[in-house]
Amino acid sequence: MDDDFLDDIILLTIVTLLSALQNVFFAHKVELECKTQTSRSFMRTGSPSFERVYCANQNCMDAYPTFIAVLWSAGVFCSQAPAAFAGLIYLFVRQKYFIGYLGETPQSTPGYIFGKRIISFLFFMSVIGILNNVFIDYVGSDFRAYVQTLTKAFSALLLIP
Amino acid sequence: MDDDFLDDIILLTIVTLLSALQNVFFAHKVELECKTQTSRSFMRTGSPSFERVYCANQNCMDAYPTFIAVLWSAGVFCSQAPAAFAGLIYLFVRQKYFIGYLGETPQSTPGYIFGKRIISFLFFMSVIGILNNVFIDYVGSDFRAYVQTLTKAFSALLLIP
Amino acid sequence: MDDDFLDDIILLTIVTLLSALQNVFFAHKVELECKTQTSRSFMRTGSPSFERVYCANQNCMDAYPTFIAVLWSAGVFCSQAPAAFAGLIYLFVRQKYFIGYLGETPQSTPGYIFGKRIISFLFFMSVIGILNNVFIDYVGSDFRAYVQTLTKAFSALLLIP
Repeated sequence: MDDDFLDDIILLTIVTLLSALQNVFFAHKVELECKTQTSRSFMRTGSPSFERVYCANQNCMDAYPTFIAVLWSAGVFCSQAPAAFAGLIYLFVRQKYFIGYLGETPQSTPGYIFGKRIISFLFFMSVIGILNNVFIDYVGSDFRAYVQTLTKAFSALLLIP
Repeated sequence: MDDDFLDDIILLTIVTLLSALQNVFFAHKVELECKTQTSRSFMRTGSPSFERVYCANQNCMDAYPTFIAVLWSAGVFCSQAPAAFAGLIYLFVRQKYFIGYLGETPQSTPGYIFGKRIISFLFFMSVIGILNNVFIDYVGSDFRAYVQTLTKAFSALLLIP
Repeated sequence: MDDDFLDDIILLTIVTLLSALQNVFFAHKVELECKTQTSRSFMRTGSPSFERVYCANQNCMDAYPTFIAVLWSAGVFCSQAPAAFAGLIYLFVRQKYFIGYLGETPQSTPGYIFGKRIISFLFFMSVIGILNNVFIDYVGSDFRAYVQTLTKAFSALLLIP
């Protein structure tokens, strides 16, 4: 595999591996809760605390392929560093969501969707990157340098809670 | 990233982004239904209409990684345009499946699997593309041009309902 | 698409396609069980045997994106053949897990996580590959040949049950 190519995706791969590590952490939590209730044999009729952790894991896993898709599209077509940075923040938000889901009171359960802002950011980065690529082919003008500066500036805004 | 390389995956990326958008649409529907039944705290013991939308979303998300895997294999190893076209049709079929799942009568609930024909088409495209690649390496004959013409012709057949 | 590039990912793509085929097999089992209980209209309140097959499929699909992520990271950044080999073994383990989940006695139900050893192996391969890539850029020394020999030797150890 070409070294330049690997350099173009190394940050995205690191974020992907971190997210895989987090997935395993979530799965481990489910496994743990599953083992504490040995009298129950099926996954989906457990105690409230099991229901909670199972559901939190499920919601996180449902959103995962969408996240990976926009992360890599944004990183490959637009600019790698801001995409990886946004991906890292998404992992923090996901961790917070998972922990928040396990909270005591049922009323505190957060919704089904989380990290909307980051997913939207990555999605718009991808769209801009693809549009720029089409411009290069058909119009001949390349705005990549501008776009990369802009996305770097905007990615910092994701830090605002 | 090399521009030629980006041109080789741009259509696949566009279809992937559209599918991500559709995933968010499905998740939004679940979120909406989830909020209308505020008295219920857990995801998996809701009203029939909630059960229905949750299940439709679940089935769609279960099939999603398989779809992405065959879409990209077919697009990269065989021919990009027919794979992206088949991907687009899959998104239409998925939309129809999701809407159909929310229908009134329980009897009308479609099965667990959908879009079998398109997944099979993409799978066979991938297999042919990989076989052709092996032929190039070991036999020395390249049938790529024939294969691409054939897949373009066959992809039009997917339009037949 | 460049032929050298395709040769660098062909084994990974074959394993991914096999895993997609297995996903379809699992989904087909769910579909079959779903049709045998026609009196039930909703997916998630079925007979014990349906619960079982639905749950086995769910657990397998939950772990799937994590598997694909570490498989490709390991194959692209470290060494293709051992990664693909580990991926093949994972597919066998997954098949065994799925069949085991459908067993008669509720006590025999395996846990939520499976294939820990293989996922860990692929994860460490990816980490070593990324570290080596960073070394090439910043230190100038390339240990790729050593790493590839080592991973080939270690991947054989995965065959030990």
